[in-house]
Amino acid sequence: MSPAAVDPADPRTRAWAYLSRVAEGAHAPLQELIGALGPEHAAEVLRSGTHGPRLPRALSDAVEARRALDRSAQDLTALARLGGRLITPDSPEWPQWRMRHFRPGPTDGRGRRPVDHAAPVALWAVGTARLTDIDRAVAVVGTRAASGYGEHVTAEIAGDLAADGYAIVSGAAYGVDAVAHRAALARDGLTVAVLACGIDRVYPAGNAALLRGVKDRGLVVSEYPPGTVPARYRFLGRNRLIAALSDAVVVPEAGLRSGARNTVSWARRFGLPVCAVPGPVTSATSVGCHRMIADGVAALAVDAAQVAEAAGPIGTLAPAVDAPERVTDPLTEDQRRVYDGFPARGAVSVEELSVEAGLPIRTVLAAVAMLEAADLIVPEGRRWRLAPVRPARPARG
Amino acid sequence: MSPAAVDPADPRTRAWAYLSRVAEGAHAPLQELIGALGPEHAAEVLRSGTHGPRLPRALSDAVEARRALDRSAQDLTALARLGGRLITPDSPEWPQWRMRHFRPGPTDGRGRRPVDHAAPVALWAVGTARLTDIDRAVAVVGTRAASGYGEHVTAEIAGDLAADGYAIVSGAAYGVDAVAHRAALARDGLTVAVLACGIDRVYPAGNAALLRGVKDRGLVVSEYPPGTVPARYRFLGRNRLIAALSDAVVVPEAGLRSGARNTVSWARRFGLPVCAVPGPVTSATSVGCHRMIADGVAALAVDAAQVAEAAGPIGTLAPAVDAPERVTDPLTEDQRRVYDGFPARGAVSVEELSVEAGLPIRTVLAAVAMLEAADLIVPEGRRWRLAPVRPARPARG
Repeated sequence: MSPAAVDPADPRTRAWAYLSRVAEGAHAPLQELIGALGPEHAAEVLRSGTHGPRLPRALSDAVEARRALDRSAQDLTALARLGGRLITPDSPEWPQWRMRHFRPGPTDGRGRRPVDHAAPVALWAVGTARLTDIDRAVAVVGTRAASGYGEHVTAEIAGDLAADGYAIVSGAAYGVDAVAHRAALARDGLTVAVLACGIDRVYPAGNAALLRGVKDRGLVVSEYPPGTVPARYRFLGRNRLIAALSDAVVVPEAGLRSGARNTVSWARRFGLPVCAVPGPVTSATSVGCHRMIADGVAALAVDAAQVAEAAGPIGTLAPAVDAPERVTDPLTEDQRRVYDGFPARGAVSVEELSVEAGLPIRTVLAAVAMLEAADLIVPEGRRWRLAPVRPARPARG
Repeated sequence: MSPAAVDPADPRTRAWAYLSRVAEGAHAPLQELIGALGPEHAAEVLRSGTHGPRLPRALSDAVEARRALDRSAQDLTALARLGGRLITPDSPEWPQWRMRHFRPGPTDGRGRRPVDHAAPVALWAVGTARLTDIDRAVAVVGTRAASGYGEHVTAEIAGDLAADGYAIVSGAAYGVDAVAHRAALARDGLTVAVLACGIDRVYPAGNAALLRGVKDRGLVVSEYPPGTVPARYRFLGRNRLIAALSDAVVVPEAGLRSGARNTVSWARRFGLPVCAVPGPVTSATSVGCHRMIADGVAALAVDAAQVAEAAGPIGTLAPAVDAPERVTDPLTEDQRRVYDGFPARGAVSVEELSVEAGLPIRTVLAAVAMLEAADLIVPEGRRWRLAPVRPARPARG
């Protein structure tokens, strides 16, 4: 049961730690590079600056400042000192099913997905609970300036959900977040705090005891390496992770401009159910909830039972993704670009694909290897063509 | 401006008063008889018992107890003493447009509409305001046991709507109703109290001053003749009139079993927008509102502006009915049965129509006269046939 200790000397772990800091936070082009090359090769390419001019501009800009600064050894040592672990896509604890949200899908007008629509490179984690302990999870988020009413409602809903076996995911902020974590702990439930700073930091300072409690009996995670200080854009990135790690989001109390709206908009992008709790129309801290309900963004919920109904019952299989599954859905952006470069009939060379897809030979080779392994293309001498029959894929990735 | 005084000696007024008491309350078969024969003839037929076996069983049963008891003179004298008036379908004050809701439409499994889906025979009214003074109206209904919160919200919403020119329609009950009427009066707005008893009665007794205020500066109406005491089924009939006289319904506060749900279900049957105001989930008197919002029965509204948006702005034409207008829409049930009895080609006699429609000759004759006047059929000797071109009708009745 005890989570595996981190080994700061392991080269692959070092690569993940380096990649976790080099662009910091959600970065779709970085994910694509890792997907194409693997973590060690991707780290080496970035660290050495040998990537050449073909690296997407968004990525080369993002890594420029930190690519030469490899703090992976120090970061992993700090993590080990905390008794923490690095949860990576290699790890059995990696929440593969929940990370399906970040598979290439939505794109902007030029056919690229937004840079922030990306899974975390890795999760820095400390706590006795494991992500794989979670069956169903509900994010409970809302105003930092909770009223007595909001605190009461949050404690009731989060406590009842936790007692029923739902993990309570929140952001360890003052107000609704803190009450939700505390209520889960008080009912001996599982709770996960997702931070917008390093897991070694105590932020906000007033929640020090709470954070200790969550580490002792739950889980504290962050996609940011130790030492990272909170910043506005990190809160937004953190909100995306709160939504991604949950099966539903409930907002017990929120003003009009609450950060909860950001978490809710991620949840909706992921197709997750969202609930909001009404309150007195005379209360400024319920205005956001009422707006979300009136706009059809959130369903009205008055108690844990209604939230649980929305989240889906404990022990049931999570529903399949809404969108029809296509064979290309699990592909990274680069793999898809290479795949799209194939003609409907006839075979092509790697060089031709490189020109067609606008990607370096190295990337095309990596993509071609994956596409062949997935039976999407077949070799023909030193060329490849589309596979005659495209195999169906299971709906769950 | 001053409403015309009632004349207890006028035979047509007497007929309406008689018909208003003979079956009491909503009665679709009675409406059909009046539609077919006119009020005086219908009253005479019922009073004399000469209607024969062809009268629908529901109607003959309903009038059996009271048909021989003509209290119209006393009722009209009592009305005159109150300074009131009888608003009938003949009257320029009759809310023709609002009564469109009761045109034959929904039917039960056997093709007949529910007995209670019917306009009032007439409205007994007292007050300085006229129904024709109403441009847009909002029904404000809810719990009799309003909380401080519910009273505050009701007063704000009803007061603001009244100040904006919306008439406030309610039932003069304790709690939300009373607060709504008072708020409208306090803002010099128009308010209409629809009673479940005679307009001469003071019910509930504690609202005596309020009822005096509404009569002095607004309007008190009832479909029940003077002297009628409140009864459960009369409250249900009253709720249908509150909805029918309004452009939207708002429920500021209601428990799970509030009578407001009945008013709301009439409003939905009429296609009217319904709003409910959320409140603390810890309050039993907001449970009904939350349920209606969660079930999609009511839209969430937090203030008068949102209710007004749902009701439609003052001074705009009311929207046309949702359903496509058919030439037969304005017909009574009997008229439609006769119309439906015509063959697609060829002419038929009144006797043949009587057999086909299962209606007495007298009813068929009345229907044929109306259908000919409406250009739906044309005479051919002593027979009639469908008009070759069915004329389009304006969308508003």
